[in-house]
Amino acid sequence: MKRIAVLTSGGDAPGMNAAVRAVVRSGHYHGLEVFGVYRGYNGLIQGDFKSLTLGSVGDIIHRGGTILHSARCEEFRTEEGRQKAIQQLHKFQIEGLVVIGGDGSFRGAKKLSASGFPAIGIPGTIDNDIPGTDFTIGFDTAVNTVIECIDRIRDTASSHERTYVVEVMGRDAGDIALWAGVAEGAESILIPEAPYELSEIIERLERSRHRDKKHSIIIVAEGVGSGVEIGEQIKQRTGWETRVTVLGHIQRGGSPTAFDRVLASRMGVKAVELLLAGERDKMVAIKDNEVIGIDFDEAFSQKHQPNLALYDLAKILSI
Amino acid sequence: MKRIAVLTSGGDAPGMNAAVRAVVRSGHYHGLEVFGVYRGYNGLIQGDFKSLTLGSVGDIIHRGGTILHSARCEEFRTEEGRQKAIQQLHKFQIEGLVVIGGDGSFRGAKKLSASGFPAIGIPGTIDNDIPGTDFTIGFDTAVNTVIECIDRIRDTASSHERTYVVEVMGRDAGDIALWAGVAEGAESILIPEAPYELSEIIERLERSRHRDKKHSIIIVAEGVGSGVEIGEQIKQRTGWETRVTVLGHIQRGGSPTAFDRVLASRMGVKAVELLLAGERDKMVAIKDNEVIGIDFDEAFSQKHQPNLALYDLAKILSI
Amino acid sequence: MKRIAVLTSGGDAPGMNAAVRAVVRSGHYHGLEVFGVYRGYNGLIQGDFKSLTLGSVGDIIHRGGTILHSARCEEFRTEEGRQKAIQQLHKFQIEGLVVIGGDGSFRGAKKLSASGFPAIGIPGTIDNDIPGTDFTIGFDTAVNTVIECIDRIRDTASSHERTYVVEVMGRDAGDIALWAGVAEGAESILIPEAPYELSEIIERLERSRHRDKKHSIIIVAEGVGSGVEIGEQIKQRTGWETRVTVLGHIQRGGSPTAFDRVLASRMGVKAVELLLAGERDKMVAIKDNEVIGIDFDEAFSQKHQPNLALYDLAKILSI
Amino acid sequence: MKRIAVLTSGGDAPGMNAAVRAVVRSGHYHGLEVFGVYRGYNGLIQGDFKSLTLGSVGDIIHRGGTILHSARCEEFRTEEGRQKAIQQLHKFQIEGLVVIGGDGSFRGAKKLSASGFPAIGIPGTIDNDIPGTDFTIGFDTAVNTVIECIDRIRDTASSHERTYVVEVMGRDAGDIALWAGVAEGAESILIPEAPYELSEIIERLERSRHRDKKHSIIIVAEGVGSGVEIGEQIKQRTGWETRVTVLGHIQRGGSPTAFDRVLASRMGVKAVELLLAGERDKMVAIKDNEVIGIDFDEAFSQKHQPNLALYDLAKILSI
Repeated sequence: MKRIAVLTSGGDAPGMNAAVRAVVRSGHYHGLEVFGVYRGYNGLIQGDFKSLTLGSVGDIIHRGGTILHSARCEEFRTEEGRQKAIQQLHKFQIEGLVVIGGDGSFRGAKKLSASGFPAIGIPGTIDNDIPGTDFTIGFDTAVNTVIECIDRIRDTASSHERTYVVEVMGRDAGDIALWAGVAEGAESILIPEAPYELSEIIERLERSRHRDKKHSIIIVAEGVGSGVEIGEQIKQRTGWETRVTVLGHIQRGGSPTAFDRVLASRMGVKAVELLLAGERDKMVAIKDNEVIGIDFDEAFSQKHQPNLALYDLAKILSI
Repeated sequence: MKRIAVLTSGGDAPGMNAAVRAVVRSGHYHGLEVFGVYRGYNGLIQGDFKSLTLGSVGDIIHRGGTILHSARCEEFRTEEGRQKAIQQLHKFQIEGLVVIGGDGSFRGAKKLSASGFPAIGIPGTIDNDIPGTDFTIGFDTAVNTVIECIDRIRDTASSHERTYVVEVMGRDAGDIALWAGVAEGAESILIPEAPYELSEIIERLERSRHRDKKHSIIIVAEGVGSGVEIGEQIKQRTGWETRVTVLGHIQRGGSPTAFDRVLASRMGVKAVELLLAGERDKMVAIKDNEVIGIDFDEAFSQKHQPNLALYDLAKILSI
Repeated sequence: MKRIAVLTSGGDAPGMNAAVRAVVRSGHYHGLEVFGVYRGYNGLIQGDFKSLTLGSVGDIIHRGGTILHSARCEEFRTEEGRQKAIQQLHKFQIEGLVVIGGDGSFRGAKKLSASGFPAIGIPGTIDNDIPGTDFTIGFDTAVNTVIECIDRIRDTASSHERTYVVEVMGRDAGDIALWAGVAEGAESILIPEAPYELSEIIERLERSRHRDKKHSIIIVAEGVGSGVEIGEQIKQRTGWETRVTVLGHIQRGGSPTAFDRVLASRMGVKAVELLLAGERDKMVAIKDNEVIGIDFDEAFSQKHQPNLALYDLAKILSI
Repeated sequence: MKRIAVLTSGGDAPGMNAAVRAVVRSGHYHGLEVFGVYRGYNGLIQGDFKSLTLGSVGDIIHRGGTILHSARCEEFRTEEGRQKAIQQLHKFQIEGLVVIGGDGSFRGAKKLSASGFPAIGIPGTIDNDIPGTDFTIGFDTAVNTVIECIDRIRDTASSHERTYVVEVMGRDAGDIALWAGVAEGAESILIPEAPYELSEIIERLERSRHRDKKHSIIIVAEGVGSGVEIGEQIKQRTGWETRVTVLGHIQRGGSPTAFDRVLASRMGVKAVELLLAGERDKMVAIKDNEVIGIDFDEAFSQKHQPNLALYDLAKILSI
């Protein structure tokens, strides 16, 4: 193996640059030439490749976003699109591909390897919703961004004795809501994986008021429903001033945390090792602090589950 | 004068605690006893007073929110409410009051002094919308919070080549939008004080695209209209992916910046000096870096105007 | 069991407050009364106890330091001191103690339990140097503080093309240096657990210069030696401008990260569960993402080892 | 005038990039071609010039450091060196130069203009030590970096009831120490512009202890002397645990604050306007919130003085 390529796909996540850097640097360490593919699978189809030197990935480990840019790509879902991509890869004499992205991106990578082209996935998404790995790149940063924002809201909440509802990202997975909720001592945490009763939420709020709590924070994962609507319901039922904040896209950005930079570095190095070892159909994962490779099929056969022990913990601690 | 009191009123702003601390500490320095009044004018009416020692205001200079809590108060708008307040003040033998808050809070203070009770205002609001002072306490922190959020959005914007619309606070005043817009190099800044043409915004966006700009950011003060709607219009007219973020209440919180802590400290000391000098009807202001007292009437007779030179500057710099 | 107590001991660490909160809240959840002991073992000897309600630990989960204060205590190392402590505990009818701190604090707790008084340890120290647990409370925050500082130094380093030496905490353990070094893409990382050759460091620096690297960062754990001296040696050997920063006590402070808040919350709950289960001589630990209890003896029989795979990783990535 | 150039010189300061961007963008706005000169006056002598497009300065407004790099340059102090520089400028048909830097850099610019080449200075230095302007670019960011660090130290200080001495930058000017001291409520602030008595510092510390203050912070500008030595003296005189932190180079870095980005943007635009108006020997300054041009000679004839009213304020507030 002499040449490999790397791309980022899907929603961007802080730490993707650290992973790109690790793929490039460890590729060079092993004597490989490494190409960057721009704008995800679109660039793969169009041959938007650039050879990356050690210096190309200098001074990016601490930057959010992805220098390779990211995009979704409909064409790659077609057999024809993938054939174009493979032709481009052959044209550049590239023998292996590293795909940094989420679930959908991995399904593309899996199909590529099914067509005979070695592809390794690195889980990069703030949602932490990829089965088979304890953590994805970007999750830790996103949770820290969320709590930094809620720490600010907390100031104003306690000055006014109000209830605040904060909607965070997580269409299918409640991980961000769960971690941020425990980290903020939220009154209630609403996640897609657990049913909720509005009456129970109200009851907890009333209990808090009763013991003279200054402010209450309720965290809602976007997959559960609109924070604005839930806030409206609480207001109607309690009559208390209730304010809603939808954190939105700020959760995707920012300089990655140490955890994400280290995780991304380890995963990038592992991906290159897997390619060199002849693997052609694997995803890098972290399990019990160890970075390993697992078959895409193994990952796809599971369903991601957040750490629901945290859900119970939150109930004990917001007693 | 032997006893004074201090309260915070209206929306809270970072730096209010630093101002409370300065009133208390400089009061003690001048041999006064200083009472804190809780929950704004409500506490004044209900006699919710507490004598504050040097230690009561220790370790608060860096905290957002207000330890005295804040609230709006309908009753104080009535003559009856104000008479109750004055009775409470007399009961506690308090001879002067410092009110930290915004425009509305000052109208209350003005009426109090018209009834013969000395009251001094300190401008504390993130909106910077109080006439007669160059800056209000909390404004600098709010602008820095906004740019920290937009710096994050910038990461993801440049990874995806999208247009982002960010709605910031400012119902009547465009100051936050203007400063944040210049500080972020925004494509367009929409403020209540200046008319805008959607076609001009689109034109600027197209020009940017043309010279291969990676991302475009448009800042909208809430007083102009809904960021969501403006984003929708841009999307419809350009066909480009446009994402909207409404920053909301995170703009009110956070540890105050150095500028706000120093401004609040200076203003708090000045307010006590004004009371001791026998002033009974003034607002503290900063003009050309100097902290002074001006008559409430003088302030109320003007209309706040943001620095519109920044508006023109932004157009030059986002060429 | 009806009454338990909690104290913080040794150097403070961000997240200690979150752990105190979790002990108090989960204690109440299980129907216990929970006392806070002030200033570590000193307060235990002097009976400086205070009953903590749910509200006592409100609004502290996000604060650095420890509301219980911390201190070292010589007297507790004596049999006499410990007997006084046990008398105080009996006097207050306390039946179990949770000690949040480091290695030295646990040896005290172990002796207490050897005297028949149930004691459970929670690992709280930024150094991550406690055997038997993958992570200690405060470590993640400290590493993130370090990288935030080095990100700043990076700006000025790249503007001037200089070499920067940064000394970080870690008298016996290189964990902070190692994680921060990987997260920053440091040129060289000097830790107590691995020998270093100045000539190899110089060689790496020269190789970097050769490929036109803009700035070089060398991280030194304080246990290895003085950053100032190492900087001086590099300057003498290379003739390049070399600047040294000793990060110092800022590494101990700051609002805890999400990771540390969640870890502390989990560990606090676990400590109370262990006491209720009749355990009297255990330390809470996190192993492979699971929070468990292990015997003090088991912990003490091991030697803490940082993840040396990161050391090798750093060499590959700073090629 | 058709072509101008811009360089950064001396120590770097956050906001320099925003100033470079403003010079380039407003230059283009006025129809000029703008060249960037690399590594300060060195690049001027060596002809290290590059034409900067609108896109060259995209996405830099929020970055610390300077994309043009900075350096000190001995050769430019000689007549010969300056003649080489003027030849390079003529060779590139450049008709005006903007120099972003400090006092020393302006003396070079002044000599250039004395030789007949139009040069305009923009004050960029964290020290705020340039006469004639209320603020320099980078000062506000540096003060905020300092208080962020001291806020962290504060956590650990209050957990241990210790005295902390923090040495900040400022060889000749006490501005950083003064602002940070007021913003942190420091016990004592030591600046080069005011004599200090160790006995008075001790007295203030003792008074604080007496009223049960949890922690004391003393800020020392580096121009006053070594923080380590002052800490040692305090320790010897009081016997209390005293810890010293020397903040060092982290004060130079970081993303610029809103204030610095806006100031830099305004100053960059003004510099180009001055060149276009035929000015050849001026420095941009901000006086009473207005951005103006003043003669270099006028600036050099004054002596910078920090706002000593803050010094007195600090004494009142740390009573």
